Amino acid sequence: MSIGTCYFPEHWPSERWETDVQQMADAGLEYVRMGEFAWARLEPERGEFDFEWLETALEYIGDHGMQAVLCTPTATPPRWLVDDHPDMLQEEPDGTTREFGGRRHYCFNSEAYALETDRIVTRLAERFADHPVVAGWQTDNEYGCHGTIRCYCDDCSAAFSEWLQDRYGDIETLNEAWGTTFWSQRYNDFDQIQPPRHSAASQHPSLLLDYYRFSSDSAVAYNERQVDILREADDDWFVTHNFMSHFGPLDAYDVSESLDFASWDSYPTGHVQVQAQGEPSTDEYLVGSPDVTGLDHDLYRSAADAPFWVMEQQPGDINWPPYSPQPAEGAMRLWAHHAVAHGADSVVYFRWRRCRQGQEQYHAGLLEADGSPDRGYADAADAAADLESLPELEGSEASVAILHEYDNLWALNIQPHAPEFDYWAHLETYYRALRKRGVAVDIVPPTRDLEDYAAVVAPTLHLVDDELATRLTEYVDGGGNLLLTMRSGVKDRANQLLNEPAPGPLADLVGATVDAHEAPHPKQERALEYDGESFDYRVWDEWLEPETATVTGTHRAGTAAGTPAITTNDVGDGRVRYCGVWPEDELADAIVTDLLEDANVATTPEPLPANVRAIGRNGYSWVLNFTGEERVLSLPTDASVVVGSDTVPAYDFAVVDTSVTELEVE
Amino acid sequence: MSIGTCYFPEHWPSERWETDVQQMADAGLEYVRMGEFAWARLEPERGEFDFEWLETALEYIGDHGMQAVLCTPTATPPRWLVDDHPDMLQEEPDGTTREFGGRRHYCFNSEAYALETDRIVTRLAERFADHPVVAGWQTDNEYGCHGTIRCYCDDCSAAFSEWLQDRYGDIETLNEAWGTTFWSQRYNDFDQIQPPRHSAASQHPSLLLDYYRFSSDSAVAYNERQVDILREADDDWFVTHNFMSHFGPLDAYDVSESLDFASWDSYPTGHVQVQAQGEPSTDEYLVGSPDVTGLDHDLYRSAADAPFWVMEQQPGDINWPPYSPQPAEGAMRLWAHHAVAHGADSVVYFRWRRCRQGQEQYHAGLLEADGSPDRGYADAADAAADLESLPELEGSEASVAILHEYDNLWALNIQPHAPEFDYWAHLETYYRALRKRGVAVDIVPPTRDLEDYAAVVAPTLHLVDDELATRLTEYVDGGGNLLLTMRSGVKDRANQLLNEPAPGPLADLVGATVDAHEAPHPKQERALEYDGESFDYRVWDEWLEPETATVTGTHRAGTAAGTPAITTNDVGDGRVRYCGVWPEDELADAIVTDLLEDANVATTPEPLPANVRAIGRNGYSWVLNFTGEERVLSLPTDASVVVGSDTVPAYDFAVVDTSVTELEVE
Amino acid sequence: MSIGTCYFPEHWPSERWETDVQQMADAGLEYVRMGEFAWARLEPERGEFDFEWLETALEYIGDHGMQAVLCTPTATPPRWLVDDHPDMLQEEPDGTTREFGGRRHYCFNSEAYALETDRIVTRLAERFADHPVVAGWQTDNEYGCHGTIRCYCDDCSAAFSEWLQDRYGDIETLNEAWGTTFWSQRYNDFDQIQPPRHSAASQHPSLLLDYYRFSSDSAVAYNERQVDILREADDDWFVTHNFMSHFGPLDAYDVSESLDFASWDSYPTGHVQVQAQGEPSTDEYLVGSPDVTGLDHDLYRSAADAPFWVMEQQPGDINWPPYSPQPAEGAMRLWAHHAVAHGADSVVYFRWRRCRQGQEQYHAGLLEADGSPDRGYADAADAAADLESLPELEGSEASVAILHEYDNLWALNIQPHAPEFDYWAHLETYYRALRKRGVAVDIVPPTRDLEDYAAVVAPTLHLVDDELATRLTEYVDGGGNLLLTMRSGVKDRANQLLNEPAPGPLADLVGATVDAHEAPHPKQERALEYDGESFDYRVWDEWLEPETATVTGTHRAGTAAGTPAITTNDVGDGRVRYCGVWPEDELADAIVTDLLEDANVATTPEPLPANVRAIGRNGYSWVLNFTGEERVLSLPTDASVVVGSDTVPAYDFAVVDTSVTELEVE
Ligand SMILES: [Mg+2]
Ligand SMILES: [Mg+2]
Ligand SMILES: [Mg+2]
Ligand SMILES: [Zn+2]
Ligand SMILES: [Zn+2]
Ligand SMILES: [Zn+2]
Repeated sequence: MSIGTCYFPEHWPSERWETDVQQMADAGLEYVRMGEFAWARLEPERGEFDFEWLETALEYIGDHGMQAVLCTPTATPPRWLVDDHPDMLQEEPDGTTREFGGRRHYCFNSEAYALETDRIVTRLAERFADHPVVAGWQTDNEYGCHGTIRCYCDDCSAAFSEWLQDRYGDIETLNEAWGTTFWSQRYNDFDQIQPPRHSAASQHPSLLLDYYRFSSDSAVAYNERQVDILREADDDWFVTHNFMSHFGPLDAYDVSESLDFASWDSYPTGHVQVQAQGEPSTDEYLVGSPDVTGLDHDLYRSAADAPFWVMEQQPGDINWPPYSPQPAEGAMRLWAHHAVAHGADSVVYFRWRRCRQGQEQYHAGLLEADGSPDRGYADAADAAADLESLPELEGSEASVAILHEYDNLWALNIQPHAPEFDYWAHLETYYRALRKRGVAVDIVPPTRDLEDYAAVVAPTLHLVDDELATRLTEYVDGGGNLLLTMRSGVKDRANQLLNEPAPGPLADLVGATVDAHEAPHPKQERALEYDGESFDYRVWDEWLEPETATVTGTHRAGTAAGTPAITTNDVGDGRVRYCGVWPEDELADAIVTDLLEDANVATTPEPLPANVRAIGRNGYSWVLNFTGEERVLSLPTDASVVVGSDTVPAYDFAVVDTSVTELEVE
Repeated sequence: MSIGTCYFPEHWPSERWETDVQQMADAGLEYVRMGEFAWARLEPERGEFDFEWLETALEYIGDHGMQAVLCTPTATPPRWLVDDHPDMLQEEPDGTTREFGGRRHYCFNSEAYALETDRIVTRLAERFADHPVVAGWQTDNEYGCHGTIRCYCDDCSAAFSEWLQDRYGDIETLNEAWGTTFWSQRYNDFDQIQPPRHSAASQHPSLLLDYYRFSSDSAVAYNERQVDILREADDDWFVTHNFMSHFGPLDAYDVSESLDFASWDSYPTGHVQVQAQGEPSTDEYLVGSPDVTGLDHDLYRSAADAPFWVMEQQPGDINWPPYSPQPAEGAMRLWAHHAVAHGADSVVYFRWRRCRQGQEQYHAGLLEADGSPDRGYADAADAAADLESLPELEGSEASVAILHEYDNLWALNIQPHAPEFDYWAHLETYYRALRKRGVAVDIVPPTRDLEDYAAVVAPTLHLVDDELATRLTEYVDGGGNLLLTMRSGVKDRANQLLNEPAPGPLADLVGATVDAHEAPHPKQERALEYDGESFDYRVWDEWLEPETATVTGTHRAGTAAGTPAITTNDVGDGRVRYCGVWPEDELADAIVTDLLEDANVATTPEPLPANVRAIGRNGYSWVLNFTGEERVLSLPTDASVVVGSDTVPAYDFAVVDTSVTELEVE
Repeated sequence: MSIGTCYFPEHWPSERWETDVQQMADAGLEYVRMGEFAWARLEPERGEFDFEWLETALEYIGDHGMQAVLCTPTATPPRWLVDDHPDMLQEEPDGTTREFGGRRHYCFNSEAYALETDRIVTRLAERFADHPVVAGWQTDNEYGCHGTIRCYCDDCSAAFSEWLQDRYGDIETLNEAWGTTFWSQRYNDFDQIQPPRHSAASQHPSLLLDYYRFSSDSAVAYNERQVDILREADDDWFVTHNFMSHFGPLDAYDVSESLDFASWDSYPTGHVQVQAQGEPSTDEYLVGSPDVTGLDHDLYRSAADAPFWVMEQQPGDINWPPYSPQPAEGAMRLWAHHAVAHGADSVVYFRWRRCRQGQEQYHAGLLEADGSPDRGYADAADAAADLESLPELEGSEASVAILHEYDNLWALNIQPHAPEFDYWAHLETYYRALRKRGVAVDIVPPTRDLEDYAAVVAPTLHLVDDELATRLTEYVDGGGNLLLTMRSGVKDRANQLLNEPAPGPLADLVGATVDAHEAPHPKQERALEYDGESFDYRVWDEWLEPETATVTGTHRAGTAAGTPAITTNDVGDGRVRYCGVWPEDELADAIVTDLLEDANVATTPEPLPANVRAIGRNGYSWVLNFTGEERVLSLPTDASVVVGSDTVPAYDFAVVDTSVTELEVE
């Protein structure tokens, strides 16, 4: 495991570079990421290439015993290139062009831009193939940032028609699959179909879902084009891409199929302000939430089923969330170890030095703008030193999987049908309940092999076909423990309602069907009895009709009073639970505790305190304290503390050489 | 009186149709509405018509003793038709096209589309003329839904110029009427005048008002074109249109002039969330508000001065309001009788079966998507059975009229001049006070004959000319009781301020003028003394200067303290009240009680409880309980309960054979 | 000092004009402003001029002993003119045209419109040159109202490229100055640079700042073109322009360079609703805030360093803020004297008579729409009579300057970096602390001579170069007292971060640097100790690192605890304070009190009560009571009350012939 940083030598005088690299080495850094956004520096005018500066920087890096990750610069096509291909710019649903002036100003379906991409990537790949300092590549940067996965231009329109033709073959198949009889939306020809541009009434949900798929596929194909060129030049270096937190429009599993491993960009105090539901706590403003951040760690580790990188790690205060407090003392070190605990191979701080120019001036670096160390520099050096105490670890094994599928996220975004419904927040409800017990979690698509998981949680498995129902039935039949939730088995893959009552093809497995659903106003009376105790829920509830299932939870208030809400069904050697509400945390805890018990999943002896997490990796456990209060660990007598001490200060952590199931934290 | 449903046979396999129709007949339904949105099914490609499926459906319906209402399918022109006439699409004020993909994607001023309309309507009218099962037609569907009354395209621009030329004759007359000297907005020629497209400063209020009139007139003319074709083919069938709740942009009186009766689409739990001011109560989330819904019943009954239809009645949970709770037990039956009490001839549930396809998947039907009965099916059957206990009734006579004019609504929307000012909510303040006393109300335009009304309430009679002043004076002079309110007689018909102080031409009638008005912030101190008691008001107040009027209400706080706010003036055999504030409910109740007493209008002995209403029709009274608590009726000894019992459960109702003025409800 | 009104004879029959002018004279008015917005009346068709009506009005005015201010009518080009030059319309960042229909529908960079402007202004100037009744001119009207300083059309794009070429000479200089290496935003040629139109990511802050400068310069140049023509025709009349409250996009100092004096349009109950932070108090809804209004008085007096005019004074209730209460009794008189106290030469009420036509119908005049006196008429007459008691006064001398620069406002608007950061509100924090002690304040740009000021307050002196640092150092060195605040010395003039830590070139002067900054969430713990007492701050804080400075304020909570926050540094004969937080009022009061003591600035014996102000001018003091409670003055024995009495009623004032430093108000 290692620490690195993101470096932009092109922003500073070349006389400074050696000092910079020396400072990096002094801090124990091992990787330097470069080249992202540098197209205009690499090719200031068409065909006039200047790669020398990058060579020079690589040389310094190599001289100091470090390695480099290079990036293709395609997120920022230069002005001269855009002038040559004005149609490469994206368009909004209302036809407004997304102009030059920021970044990501290109359409994934512009053939002209694809050729330009081939040209620059080929040139770079050939130049740096077999370079001893170049460990690997990051393609482009944060695909989809600033809302750029979905474009509504004419190139996209034509490509969408083709994509649909490939998918459906003939137009009647599409009409049937989408259900275009509704509102006379029938098409006579694929060419008639347009992106979901501005219209008076909302657009057809089946068209929308396919447009979301097509848009994601367009980015995936664009990325593969780059990956192929890079691999062709040198099959030794790795290729990765840096994803974003809780990012919906792009299918990270699809992108990851062509990557060696997935990376992501982690800004805990920012994400907690924009990704989490509800107002962050004071602690969360200072260090973020371990579950909001942890879910992304687990997602991107699972995406390529490989140890991941944090390709950008928050180095201090940042520029883009609403509020920008200084992180707590030691936060930058805490985050690095949080990532490592979740299975990170490398944590790369963004950026090396606060940039004087442009849109990110209010984004800290490990160094201040004046070149002196900022608060993050010491934290990064400490984190690197800590890792020296540890052997190189492999990724930990997770005994529980959460099923996550972008198609479901998209379908539910298209028709959330409740103001507070948020796909990620609902998934996090179960994730938090698991992590509170120290349980390691993979976040995988339903197509993955499930047999090795003792338990599987599938929040809102919305689009279900017979094949998936069969796979899940086999999993349970073979002894698996499956927790299904509300809004599952509602639609087919084309986003049409199923003919059968929900959960559709899963009804036999669940042993119950959904008689009614509702999205009540928060002030409406509601209550649920589970296992003899009273609990609360929110946003959504269902009234169940059990066939073979046993009712374990029942509505006790409102119009729903008396109807079943949670069921359990034994199938073969396994058991299926169905939770027909969005549970408040106490209820989620109760259900998940019962699930883990059935599945014989070992947990911490007691639930962990809020924002304190114990995470295991290869025999070691990280106890991470994201709160402002000191925590005390109780260890088994044969265990010892490898990093830190058994009294964990505020915003600090300890590493111990034992399993999380042996730990108590107070 | 009868119950019906909206049926889309084209969404289901033809093998199912007979089962569907049998189930309808089993429930006692008498009418089936069809064909709305079916253009692409009726004419899949230009000139290739397929009406057979509709014939077949009609046959089943006739065989089971029911009748059909057919719809012209013009709300959803098919893709191929739009491709032939891309200019038929509407445009936003900023020039953005409202594209294909939803519905209502046509401009009322597209001559190309008008000709296409003629073509399909003629074809349908000729095919089904004299068909024994077809009782009548609904034209198009919900004109103006999704904000489509007002379009800003070039066709509309040209049509507006013509419309203005017709209205004003020469441009100097328009310049004078509008007052275009202001900000040098003078026109030299009608051709120069454009729709109120996006501009830096706001647009001229006189142009805006005429654009709103023109837009409404455009839809009215478009509708008449359809009506004429339908009547020409068969003068026996009825023609109606389905209006929407509290819908402002289209003048329902104008549309209704060519209709046999008006219909409207009633979704009580939706309207109460988006039409009512303030947060709905828990009860209102479950059944809606009887006054919000009742006002629409009375408006559309008054629109054509004929018993109305609810052409779409909410059947269960629905897809479009923010929250979608399940309606209370029995709500769907309650709503049907609420409509009948207000004078409905038929209540048609929308839709028969939850649709698998498209934008309305989250909208319940009487049947589930799988064809089994949903909660509404039993309620609809019950409602139909209840009606068997009653003779066929005529519409009840209302002794009080509320004056409502779209021009006033538009003028006040253009310059509301107070953040909380809402035309409908203000009108509802008085409507609620009347309905709370069991008083039947017509909602009529000021041009209607008023002499038969014992009392007339005219909220914000904003635009007043001498002719109207004369008519109202004659009404009062002849013994009428008139209640005028704030913001009346402020402007002329062209939306210019009058030269005289408000209420302008009504000043003599009122016997007072408005010295000042204000729109205070809610936290500003205010109080009003009426009849010796202290009351509250909000949003708006006026300081009056009485001439011949007696002051009955006086400001007692703030800058206004001491100035008159409410007056009474005896004129001829009648009396005029003027209320210069937006009264809170207690004050509205006090004023309305005094008005009704003067007018000798019989009322319930006591005010009815909130959300409990007693409504009379032809000697019968419906007592409708929109609350979660049981209510007990006290009846005269000679009266009997026809439906239900004298203990009315939560969300239930009773019908009794006596007048509401004999009833007490506790 | 005098009172006047804004008159639109063109809106009323000519038979009325003499009556109007007689009524004005009766009220003691001395100036009548006219002609604004009258282009279509002055030139109804191209080349057909009609100036007779204006001549006639001038004649009446002269006959009644008054003088006129004429306006160029360029804010409202007529429809026929726009039809001749459709490209003269402005465009939004997304390309939407700002259409005809309101006002200000022209681009400052349209050469076609500039020529039309020359034509009409020349014609008017020649016609009225040496006219005995015309005292001077107002150019155009409220440049920038409705968001029209910044336009994004192609004319602006071309002009921007030229402006940049003039500023930077060659493209590499621009690339270097802006820092276009960031995100590959390098330009090869000035022609490539576009306005900051809609883009997916935000635009480059250096481009944005220059676009804001360019846009302001474009309006300045347009104005100068008018001024030159007017002066050429007659060099005796004055030329002014009417600015707006707290208006950011236009540099009032630059515009004022070509004016004889600055004017502004004062609407106290409107500004307090839209300009002030937080919810106004009840009093403020009735009379506005003396500091919000006073800051504009001081700004525009300072802009041209000359007695200013209120060219539009609120006459009663108005049409544009959210709420429109009637002003308190006497408010219109209070405002006139508030302006005079701050150094106004004339206060001109807008408008004479409520207009029947167009967008401003809900805007009161001194007369009602029917021509009878409204509430403001008596107040205006009283204000005029009051002025008779006073001699003609010169502007008072301010001993304290607040430094204000539009470039800083723009840079901070581009990157506020905290949701509640507002440039004006921060400046007002210090302004209020000064005015609370009766201290007169100039609001001047940093380029003004400072040596005569005993103290200088420089809130957020964001962009600092060596020249400014030198000037400020000289000021302090020579005995000046300087208060610098947070976010100063952060960037260079091109909006790049400085290489050095803030306050950059001011670091030696301050004797400290900024080690870290943060924008904490309001709920985060924070506290500051200053001079042994505990204080609060908000929005922003910095952690200081003193070199030569003494720490006077220290963080006592949160991550910042223990770090310095406020410093003092003695330099030469003077002293520099640096306040690294946005202080709550109590802290601002404490710091300002210490500053004034050091600078020997005389103050009121006690801080004035909230919304009560004592303002001196040439030996007289106005005590202005913007509250609903009576106030009692204690005067020195030799002082006397010239207007009012020593008991000042609610919303009233008194003038006394002594200095504010002798006054106590209870
Ligand atoms: Mg059901
Ligand atoms: Mg008045
Ligand atoms: Mg620092
Ligand atoms: Zn595209
Ligand atoms: Zn149109
Ligand atoms: Zn422009």
